[in-house]
Amino acid sequence: MEALKNRILSDGQCIGSDIIKVDSFLNHQIDVALISEIGKEIARRFSAKEINKILTIEASGISIAFATAQSMNGIPVVYAKKGSPATIVEGVYRTEVTSFTKRAVSAVTVSKKYLSKEDNILIVDDFMARGEAALGLVHLAEQAGAKVQGIAIAIEKEFQGGSEKLRQKGYEVLSLAVIASIEDGHITFR
Amino acid sequence: MEALKNRILSDGQCIGSDIIKVDSFLNHQIDVALISEIGKEIARRFSAKEINKILTIEASGISIAFATAQSMNGIPVVYAKKGSPATIVEGVYRTEVTSFTKRAVSAVTVSKKYLSKEDNILIVDDFMARGEAALGLVHLAEQAGAKVQGIAIAIEKEFQGGSEKLRQKGYEVLSLAVIASIEDGHITFR
Repeated sequence: MEALKNRILSDGQCIGSDIIKVDSFLNHQIDVALISEIGKEIARRFSAKEINKILTIEASGISIAFATAQSMNGIPVVYAKKGSPATIVEGVYRTEVTSFTKRAVSAVTVSKKYLSKEDNILIVDDFMARGEAALGLVHLAEQAGAKVQGIAIAIEKEFQGGSEKLRQKGYEVLSLAVIASIEDGHITFR
Repeated sequence: MEALKNRILSDGQCIGSDIIKVDSFLNHQIDVALISEIGKEIARRFSAKEINKILTIEASGISIAFATAQSMNGIPVVYAKKGSPATIVEGVYRTEVTSFTKRAVSAVTVSKKYLSKEDNILIVDDFMARGEAALGLVHLAEQAGAKVQGIAIAIEKEFQGGSEKLRQKGYEVLSLAVIASIEDGHITFR
């Protein structure tokens, strides 16, 4: 998606060779017009699939998931919640996710009320690095017996292997901007 | 707002006399059509004010803030981040907020890059109880020298005094559903 790639080039900040900060438009300050367009594009690319619910993870996936759902006839969004790994909560599906950027493990949960075997899920998130968050969401959907129809990501750092891992498991992965490398502050898209 | 009140009555779950769970449509599963309508209504009610940015707090404020911004010509949304009170981060405005429902203190931060004295802010959140989160967001805006043009809340529990506190400080507070009391599982709106 050209508008997103151009924005990453103009406003993204490279940190070392594996982190790119996009908090001016994606995950702290939100460019509402751009995120609305991202949602439209994801909806368009998955229009051939039967999808009745979007699954994302708090907090930075929410705006993209919401915009996507608006372009998919207002289907519901469910966002998984992060908490302390030690907290036991009843009535939830639970998995653990290691954040690449934060280098911390979180328990991630979804209420059993909001995922079921009748659901055809599209997983949506802002970033994919090693695929930990998406794999966690897949794991939650599997526990519920829900079918994962695809995984849509705004920005993928391909060199960290996440999408490869998910495709090997048989999932369709759509990334709107695929970063092949970050070198000396210079971003190369695939 | 009638649609929201009706939804609270049909789907809200009362817990004791001071908590109402609305995670089936507002803060875990999101009813995208309803939240889009909430955003439109907030935008309509503040249409006479000069507002160039929406400030909210992760995670449950994000969808409402995003929908509101869409109806305000796509102005940016900034969401404050919650973290451990002990974590020191450079380059941020910082305050502390005690969550009524979670009974925990969080540090709440916004990057100095995304709030400034040129900003005319609308604060948006899903819930108001004792007003802690909104007061925290006001405090962040004040640190930046930004002007708070108003505070918009989806569901207010009036009996917990938050909006009264904020109005006494001179802020305009709009709540789309104002709960006067919760007694024996029965909700009374003002």
